[in-house]
Amino acid sequence: MTFAATVLTLYPEMFPGPLGVSLAGRALREERWSLDTVQIRDFATDKHRSVDDTPAGGGAGMVLRADVLAAALDSVTDGRPVLAMTPRGKALTQERVRQLADGPGAIILCGRFEGFDERLFEARDIEPVAIGDYVLSGGEMGALVLLDACVRLLPGVMGAASSGIEESFESGLLEYPQYTRPYEWEGRVIPEVLRSGDHARIAAWRKARSESDTRLWRPDLWERHVDARVQSPSGAHKQDEGQKK
Amino acid sequence: MTFAATVLTLYPEMFPGPLGVSLAGRALREERWSLDTVQIRDFATDKHRSVDDTPAGGGAGMVLRADVLAAALDSVTDGRPVLAMTPRGKALTQERVRQLADGPGAIILCGRFEGFDERLFEARDIEPVAIGDYVLSGGEMGALVLLDACVRLLPGVMGAASSGIEESFESGLLEYPQYTRPYEWEGRVIPEVLRSGDHARIAAWRKARSESDTRLWRPDLWERHVDARVQSPSGAHKQDEGQKK
Repeated sequence: MTFAATVLTLYPEMFPGPLGVSLAGRALREERWSLDTVQIRDFATDKHRSVDDTPAGGGAGMVLRADVLAAALDSVTDGRPVLAMTPRGKALTQERVRQLADGPGAIILCGRFEGFDERLFEARDIEPVAIGDYVLSGGEMGALVLLDACVRLLPGVMGAASSGIEESFESGLLEYPQYTRPYEWEGRVIPEVLRSGDHARIAAWRKARSESDTRLWRPDLWERHVDARVQSPSGAHKQDEGQKK
Repeated sequence: MTFAATVLTLYPEMFPGPLGVSLAGRALREERWSLDTVQIRDFATDKHRSVDDTPAGGGAGMVLRADVLAAALDSVTDGRPVLAMTPRGKALTQERVRQLADGPGAIILCGRFEGFDERLFEARDIEPVAIGDYVLSGGEMGALVLLDACVRLLPGVMGAASSGIEESFESGLLEYPQYTRPYEWEGRVIPEVLRSGDHARIAAWRKARSESDTRLWRPDLWERHVDARVQSPSGAHKQDEGQKK
């Protein structure tokens, strides 16, 4: 079964866009996934084809109408998960990306302006998703990001060698740093351990760097990682409270 | 002065892509910002134009060479901040987006494969940035997201009415829910308070919803928000420990 993506948007011309290039583009041509778009405006009911109106209670900008969005959504609903890209959503994680990539695909609703009429989320089964703690001009960028993250995990897309298992976030930590030739560059050499051929030493060094870099760059991830180890008695490591800060 | 973006990538054909459409596209045509790309491969030094090599110490995939990347970067460095899109980076925030949007622009390095040779970050002043806790097929999607977030904040792009001040993340909280016409839809009505015309009541309701939705969808943001209020005695609110969980 092919991973089927349907994107509901006011800007269908943004798709496939960058997803038509490189890894995701090749996978699209190889039919490892499919992508179609629905123009939300086609579901407007008035002669002006309005999709939005002013916010109830006042304020700047425009709000996407629940009735128009629901009609667009109902036209494609078929059991696939429905996600709405919005800064008000739950933060996207690699775990959720893996779940979606293992499923039949996704229907993705792209917001614009001041967002969706909230009743849409009460009346339909929609998962609000934020790709990060910043605001974009619309949900289309989020949809592109979400689909790129999913597509690379589909069978055959990355190839057997790159399963993604050792990547950042898969273990709850950042990935270790990488080095490659030339051996010496601007007076800096590749760490000796990586040239030792001693697989156990290399693995230990990488694990230590993965941990120290996570502490340095992502103290929030590190705290969650330490908390998870405490809660899971099968964890290989005893918690070291001294590492927590 | 125009916000000037330079993107270093192996896939220049991905740009402007979705940034050529809608808000960012109009701003690009109006020369409120500029975008150029540098093909990293043009800085390869061997006859095969290699930009990558196998990871020192073993492992799947390929690593981008420090010497090639540095040569590409040195060709455009001019005092603008240099960011590298990588899952090993610091998490992008709306605060950082605002800082960048207030500056002269950005030089953005897009990774691919297993990432960059780490010596690049030791030898050059580069800020590693992650747009979220998931892995993409390359840094190009991250660059698109980063630029979209910056461009919408540039003077004249959104218009005076939408300053973005009441948006998600600006106050450390998610934005309150929005509603618009029709008043009744599928038996659901717009909350009465939003039709009251009582601005103080509306503001209080929105603040309460902003807080409760942040607790529900983003408990991590909520904890940070509560912590910040404790640390800042000028905060209008006394911490309520009972809200913390």
